[in-house]
Amino acid sequence: MGAHDGNGPSAQRVEPGSVNVPLGAYPATSTSSNVDAAKVANDVISNLGRAISSKSFAGIANLLLGDKSYWRDHLALTWDFRTLKGSEIISNFVVSSKTPLTKIDVDTSAAHRQPTFGPIDGIGEVNGIATYFNFETQIGRGRGVLNLAEENGTWKIFTIYTVLVELKGYEEPTGKRRTKGVRHGGDPTRKNWRERREAESNLEGIDPKVLIIGAGQGGLAAAARLKMLNIPSLMVDMNERVGDNWRKRYHQLVLHDPVWYDHLPYIPFPPHWPVFTPKDKLADWFESYVKHLELNVWTSTKLTSSYWNEVKKQWTVTVERKLPNGSTDTRTFHPNHIIQATGHSGKKNFPKLPGMETFKGSRLCHSSEFSGARPNLKGAKAVVVGCCNSGHDIAQDFYEKGYDVTIVQRSTTCVISSESITDIGLKGLYDEDGPPTEDADLALWSMPGEIMKTLQVKVTKLQNENDKELLDGLRAAGFGIDMGDMDSGLLIKYYQRGGGYYIDVGASKLIIDGKIKVKQGQELAKLLPDGIEFADGSKLEADEIVFATGYQNMRTEAKSIFGNAVADRVGDVWGLNSEGEFRTMWQQSGHPGFWFMGGNLAITRYYSRLLALQIKAIEEGLLHNHGQSEHARL
Amino acid sequence: MGAHDGNGPSAQRVEPGSVNVPLGAYPATSTSSNVDAAKVANDVISNLGRAISSKSFAGIANLLLGDKSYWRDHLALTWDFRTLKGSEIISNFVVSSKTPLTKIDVDTSAAHRQPTFGPIDGIGEVNGIATYFNFETQIGRGRGVLNLAEENGTWKIFTIYTVLVELKGYEEPTGKRRTKGVRHGGDPTRKNWRERREAESNLEGIDPKVLIIGAGQGGLAAAARLKMLNIPSLMVDMNERVGDNWRKRYHQLVLHDPVWYDHLPYIPFPPHWPVFTPKDKLADWFESYVKHLELNVWTSTKLTSSYWNEVKKQWTVTVERKLPNGSTDTRTFHPNHIIQATGHSGKKNFPKLPGMETFKGSRLCHSSEFSGARPNLKGAKAVVVGCCNSGHDIAQDFYEKGYDVTIVQRSTTCVISSESITDIGLKGLYDEDGPPTEDADLALWSMPGEIMKTLQVKVTKLQNENDKELLDGLRAAGFGIDMGDMDSGLLIKYYQRGGGYYIDVGASKLIIDGKIKVKQGQELAKLLPDGIEFADGSKLEADEIVFATGYQNMRTEAKSIFGNAVADRVGDVWGLNSEGEFRTMWQQSGHPGFWFMGGNLAITRYYSRLLALQIKAIEEGLLHNHGQSEHARL
Repeated sequence: MGAHDGNGPSAQRVEPGSVNVPLGAYPATSTSSNVDAAKVANDVISNLGRAISSKSFAGIANLLLGDKSYWRDHLALTWDFRTLKGSEIISNFVVSSKTPLTKIDVDTSAAHRQPTFGPIDGIGEVNGIATYFNFETQIGRGRGVLNLAEENGTWKIFTIYTVLVELKGYEEPTGKRRTKGVRHGGDPTRKNWRERREAESNLEGIDPKVLIIGAGQGGLAAAARLKMLNIPSLMVDMNERVGDNWRKRYHQLVLHDPVWYDHLPYIPFPPHWPVFTPKDKLADWFESYVKHLELNVWTSTKLTSSYWNEVKKQWTVTVERKLPNGSTDTRTFHPNHIIQATGHSGKKNFPKLPGMETFKGSRLCHSSEFSGARPNLKGAKAVVVGCCNSGHDIAQDFYEKGYDVTIVQRSTTCVISSESITDIGLKGLYDEDGPPTEDADLALWSMPGEIMKTLQVKVTKLQNENDKELLDGLRAAGFGIDMGDMDSGLLIKYYQRGGGYYIDVGASKLIIDGKIKVKQGQELAKLLPDGIEFADGSKLEADEIVFATGYQNMRTEAKSIFGNAVADRVGDVWGLNSEGEFRTMWQQSGHPGFWFMGGNLAITRYYSRLLALQIKAIEEGLLHNHGQSEHARL
Repeated sequence: MGAHDGNGPSAQRVEPGSVNVPLGAYPATSTSSNVDAAKVANDVISNLGRAISSKSFAGIANLLLGDKSYWRDHLALTWDFRTLKGSEIISNFVVSSKTPLTKIDVDTSAAHRQPTFGPIDGIGEVNGIATYFNFETQIGRGRGVLNLAEENGTWKIFTIYTVLVELKGYEEPTGKRRTKGVRHGGDPTRKNWRERREAESNLEGIDPKVLIIGAGQGGLAAAARLKMLNIPSLMVDMNERVGDNWRKRYHQLVLHDPVWYDHLPYIPFPPHWPVFTPKDKLADWFESYVKHLELNVWTSTKLTSSYWNEVKKQWTVTVERKLPNGSTDTRTFHPNHIIQATGHSGKKNFPKLPGMETFKGSRLCHSSEFSGARPNLKGAKAVVVGCCNSGHDIAQDFYEKGYDVTIVQRSTTCVISSESITDIGLKGLYDEDGPPTEDADLALWSMPGEIMKTLQVKVTKLQNENDKELLDGLRAAGFGIDMGDMDSGLLIKYYQRGGGYYIDVGASKLIIDGKIKVKQGQELAKLLPDGIEFADGSKLEADEIVFATGYQNMRTEAKSIFGNAVADRVGDVWGLNSEGEFRTMWQQSGHPGFWFMGGNLAITRYYSRLLALQIKAIEEGLLHNHGQSEHARL
């Protein structure tokens, strides 16, 4: 059954082909006191700069913490997402970069960015020195985070992270570079802003460089980044309105991540915004986002054909747009790039069970089609198959409308309270007192995958202690709990597998109290006219059945939209490679001019810029559009 | 003719009854070096705190710079807007306050807020010490700005400003107080956010405490502030869409003030926003503002009756709302307050001239009705009467469409380039490197009116030097220039009169180049079938005539909406009183439960909170709803 195929117990399950990343090791804590963090960091940074400019393999290696050191690079030293480990490998990587760092400086622009001596493990067990820094290459500017550990009295680089932020000559028109917004003087033919905007959004005389399929957070973030790089794009979406990808979901849906983690690029949520955004409010925000960033979206529009010209490196695509007056407008475009932003998930997992056609109940659907429990059906029997976020939310909705509801849990679920996420997991990084979102993102993504996993093991332990009553209660109610691979918890489960967890916003209490019943540990054998029969022969009556059984790999959606010509060339999507980097998403996918975009709001915020920078680099001739990364896919 | 009635030359003209505020005097500069600004400011602040708590008249007076000292207070020490001058008057004012400061501390939360030794005159001629501070009273918390001058080696208070920011127990739900946005647990009847929001915006079962007439920036800002204080309000607007007050104005309209000065409360413009916002873009922003702050607006709605019950201190109002399906919904409400937010201007000034009915041209209208010059009418003769912002913009529009256009300037105009506003006038306060908007507002409003005027004389001089070529060119083209009262320039002209200036965004160059012709110094005598005859007998041919002749006092609009029962009780609106404070706007108006709201975006941002706090105080029984300030109107 879909995501359950041949992949072991839920805790260890990953996207097909994804690596179950090993745990990394933190260095020993520094026992020094009176550390002059600024001096140490400045020395290391300037020595590093010198070693790079003289291409000194030994000079670089000497600064690194031997085999324990990591360099994570996102598009700065190569046009790839890389995490290198060990001084030899890193030094080779740095010395052979075609875009070496030409300038590197400690970032002293704010207190939290400056070199600080203190915990570098997020928990307080390992003291070291951390600092933000800025750098340049010949073609761009970037930012980085450096973590130093003390080894035998010498400060060495434990982790260093470099990420490209902008290309020289193509800086974003924000802040001091914002446009003026008025054209002075007497131009007899000048259109006003609205007229120019309407022409642009209808693509009058414009062939977009990038076609984006889907106008959810992935499409919006990508389009916003491209807009800032002056690359004309068009989003097409089959829904009637921007935001419908959220608006049409189940009635009570509220984001399970808090506001501080969820900001879109450029227009942050305002300070009165609720911690957890209701779906329709998010949908309305998306609509304004399009308006205020002046993005081009065609709704009620579908891609009807696509063809890649390998010689011209160009697509020919036809889209059909249903206009408000009922007529259909067919347009052919020739973009250089297509971004599939149809959700990081692919086709829905909807099991084919014997007896399905015999089911006599009033509802049998996938969670993506669930439009909400019906009122006034008190006592009706609802069964929800699947115990992740959607399954819980749907079960809760049924319960609240007075149904007799059972949730079917075939394996186990990683459960965490939303308080443990906000008060422990994201604390200090994404919270009211946290640094600017941009800095929080740097801190988060600066961690090599292995180290992130190790940190998450520690964090998960703290969260589980905080959630002890909740988790004990669930176990007592017969609900199966797991802590993810190596007890690394929810976040890594999301990265490696894309699901398998529930962030509790109320349903766990209903399960503990027996208000939502649990059927645990049994696969479904077949459907009966009035319910479900399980592998052990037990039966469960049902008037309505919802399969909250998740989605297949995003690649399946690529296949259904673009066919095998595309799907066969791209790599597996989502999950991590052996370096702990995400696979295929937001990077050269295997098919030239074809990109995958998606993820939660925080992930799309971060990776959308990296995706847009790669496209800009291709458009400006800085990067070859061959669809492959320099580094063979791992 | 309207605004021209019996009020002298343009430079000195003010709203009827408004005081032409005298210039204030800055103290002598400090000649000290090595000033310990923190120590001095802390000493003064703590001495002031002690003197207030012991109600020591002499203690307070001793800290003040004698007759040259000012205390500006907005709702902190009294429920009024006051500027007191001279140590005796100030000390009496402070000692007799019913809500004395109970706590006062220097604000050290950011570098720019801390005590600093340097220029306190915005120009660099007078050195002193400036600091932000925080304070409490029994009922609220506020912020302030202190300017100290050195006199015979002793530091004295030159200006002190106190403004109420929040009422204790009614703090705004922003930042750490933001709502959670999700209701945990299993409430069988719970509506989702959209359902709750729809019920609220339709006022299902809700009688709003405040009815706001008009949903322009004034209405929106007031509604937003009230929302944060948990006071249910409803805006009604005759337009079809929020933002139409801008959308329906002339084609090329772009704000003449820059983005940094124009932020609305709570949701600032994002960093890519153009410096000068086009009208339709602002209109769209207003629509989103309503949505994201969850404000209640009924569009296509008019007030059909209003009645004030003096005993119950309550209105009975009936509104008619045209629904999208064409039907009309009539509702009666009983608000305690009505806010007139129909624009700070009142009825339009549309002159009644002999011969108007004989005019044969294709257009004869007021600037508020001007829908844009027609294309393809090359050579048609357009005449614009009036030389302020609208007149210039409309003349420019005519020119760009190929008309033969003349602008009629009867008196003189204060002209300034938009660069001189952004690069000199607002520099350092409202610009990319300026402090947070909230702090910039405090700095701006901390200046007593007299001192502000003195500063503006200095600033205007600098701006005129910067605009020398522009102004000389205009004079050479026969255009009449003034510098406002006592050469205090545009801002004071706006405060005292509400108009009389042009912020150049291109039309001046067209006038200089003769592309827009000028008819200067003549009143209109009558209209002819094919043009205008002036007082000196000269004639001007015209196919289209637009009167950009401004608006009457806002009170005239109150009269036409609410009749004499209201208009006769309220004071004159806009312009300054003898203390240099605005008259009647945003404060008890003379009629209980009736308030005027309006002004440009920056003014509405600041005063909206003060208005909302007064209403909240009345609703919570902290302030009497008698319509009169404690301080007799000046």
